[in-house]
Amino acid sequence: MQTLSVALAERSYPIHVGTGLIDRSDLFLPFLARKKVAVVTNATVAPLFMERLAGALARKGVEVVRIVVADGEEHKDWPTLNTIFDALIEQRCGRDCTLIALGGGVIGDLAGFAAATYQRGVEYIQVPTTLLAQVDSSIGGKTAINHPLGKNMIGAFHQPRLVLADMGTLETLPERELRSGLAEVIKHGLVRDATFFEWLEASLDRLLTRDSDALEHAVVRSIEIKAEIVGRDERESGLRALLNLGHTFGHAIETGLGYGAWLHGEAVAAGMAMAADLSRQLGYLSEADTARIRSLLQRAGLPTAAKGITPERMQQLMRVDKKSRGGRIHLVLLERLGAALLRTDVPADAIEHTLSRLAA
Amino acid sequence: MQTLSVALAERSYPIHVGTGLIDRSDLFLPFLARKKVAVVTNATVAPLFMERLAGALARKGVEVVRIVVADGEEHKDWPTLNTIFDALIEQRCGRDCTLIALGGGVIGDLAGFAAATYQRGVEYIQVPTTLLAQVDSSIGGKTAINHPLGKNMIGAFHQPRLVLADMGTLETLPERELRSGLAEVIKHGLVRDATFFEWLEASLDRLLTRDSDALEHAVVRSIEIKAEIVGRDERESGLRALLNLGHTFGHAIETGLGYGAWLHGEAVAAGMAMAADLSRQLGYLSEADTARIRSLLQRAGLPTAAKGITPERMQQLMRVDKKSRGGRIHLVLLERLGAALLRTDVPADAIEHTLSRLAA
Repeated sequence: MQTLSVALAERSYPIHVGTGLIDRSDLFLPFLARKKVAVVTNATVAPLFMERLAGALARKGVEVVRIVVADGEEHKDWPTLNTIFDALIEQRCGRDCTLIALGGGVIGDLAGFAAATYQRGVEYIQVPTTLLAQVDSSIGGKTAINHPLGKNMIGAFHQPRLVLADMGTLETLPERELRSGLAEVIKHGLVRDATFFEWLEASLDRLLTRDSDALEHAVVRSIEIKAEIVGRDERESGLRALLNLGHTFGHAIETGLGYGAWLHGEAVAAGMAMAADLSRQLGYLSEADTARIRSLLQRAGLPTAAKGITPERMQQLMRVDKKSRGGRIHLVLLERLGAALLRTDVPADAIEHTLSRLAA
Repeated sequence: MQTLSVALAERSYPIHVGTGLIDRSDLFLPFLARKKVAVVTNATVAPLFMERLAGALARKGVEVVRIVVADGEEHKDWPTLNTIFDALIEQRCGRDCTLIALGGGVIGDLAGFAAATYQRGVEYIQVPTTLLAQVDSSIGGKTAINHPLGKNMIGAFHQPRLVLADMGTLETLPERELRSGLAEVIKHGLVRDATFFEWLEASLDRLLTRDSDALEHAVVRSIEIKAEIVGRDERESGLRALLNLGHTFGHAIETGLGYGAWLHGEAVAAGMAMAADLSRQLGYLSEADTARIRSLLQRAGLPTAAKGITPERMQQLMRVDKKSRGGRIHLVLLERLGAALLRTDVPADAIEHTLSRLAA
């Protein structure tokens, strides 16, 4: 087991990465204010891991409330959140209960937002069971639900007390989910670490065949990059915004096609291809490096363009995005491989040109 | 105009108390990150004050989004909150928009929670137009909506940037709302300041006839007490809990009778009478002081017992309250006039005895 951490003064927390961690009640117990937890998961993950986690805790005398919601991005909404609140109240969970998010990014966002707002805030633990959640969404305290008009529009910053990334959960992860997670892994290389990007180019086949050493390196290096950035800019006043590479385009794709039609990582992959194309247009990125990015995404089985959504609709949705200010779209671009920058003044015709090539 | 403040380091904020402040765009402008605001109010308050506030800002070049929701505690819920989110997104309010809560406690809680969670948090300003909101709910950053099973069950701590208490708004306040606000004024005396309690006994008639000097003193002294306590214990880890005097009983009354049946201050008044009776039973409060409390509440036209809810139902609802821990009801009692204490071990039969006398 390796342990990393997010450094946020009195709200710092450890991130354990290893195999079989879900069964390790000893890792959870020091973080429980009281021996009562509510485990939130979905109907897909519950049969795989709920009883392993809940059983291990129950054997140590922890009272476990089990909350199972429907699976999918289209359920990251208020009605689902409300079923969590109902269960917490009915099962008499007080402010000293700890929530445990057991699942992928949707579960982490939902349970995290429930923890941020139930009784004005309770503690929670992230147990990410997808590659995407392990390398990205379980770290950093962003929680949210979707609004029909915009992705992640309603949410809160609320840091977990602990993150447990059990590599064993990746063994049963569906192929499409694995590829979706690779999009965020590739993002970390693009934004911050050219050497890691090159390692990904060299190691992609091993990742796709789930070589455990390769996967663990990809997870650990991604977490290192994300944790360092979150520790320096928790509330996204600057640096952290760079982690949104591909996300303004990606969120527009997800909202425009309907939540759940594409996985989040798929939309981010297409969004990164768009951001790379725009970066090339604006003279930052070379033609060759743009092609390398597109090629790596394609080898990972990820989309590099959006189908089913017009450039006009994309632009309309992008203006609603959280990252726009004063009506101006803020975009993360690539200065080169391994270095991102935020631009608030991208010419509209450059965005149009990229969208006309990559969205239809 | 008098200016008080809540001292919370970099999140400190001023509270202006005076007449005609709603028209004073100069007081708002320094707190707007961008010249765009969304004013949230209800259908009762809108015809009285919306255009005064919005007009003054618009004349200074501020873009004003007007959001009017239904009036009443029964609308402090998710569907109403969602109409606020809909309007914010449709009107392209970004993270740099400022929300303005113009109204009583329900509007402050709703708009404050919208500000806490819209795009993971935007800034807001409180413009309380009821006595209850001016002396209590607009100060201290507690925001929430109700859940059918529990009052204020879903919410966040989110401090405003500024509070403007315009005493002029009390001139049009309905009688019943004025009396409801007096409950929280009396609470501040009971919890923290026996001299203020005595002043209230002596000045109640002037308050009921809306003598402006008396009202201003009641508002300012209440804010001083609340601001001092919030500055010392923002997240209610100790001291701040004392401000919940009467609220565990009161929330059970509000939930049990249906939100909106009683005003919040009415339920708190009956709750304080119950807390006083329990304090007397447990040997803290003298018979004479208990009678003084009951008498002052009654002179203010406030209830000192609950009708329409059984003692059994009260107890059931009290166990769901946010202040319970490990299944134990935490209760604020009075050690004497002007001094409250928190008890976590009140014998169940003492609570039963009080409820059998004061709830039916």
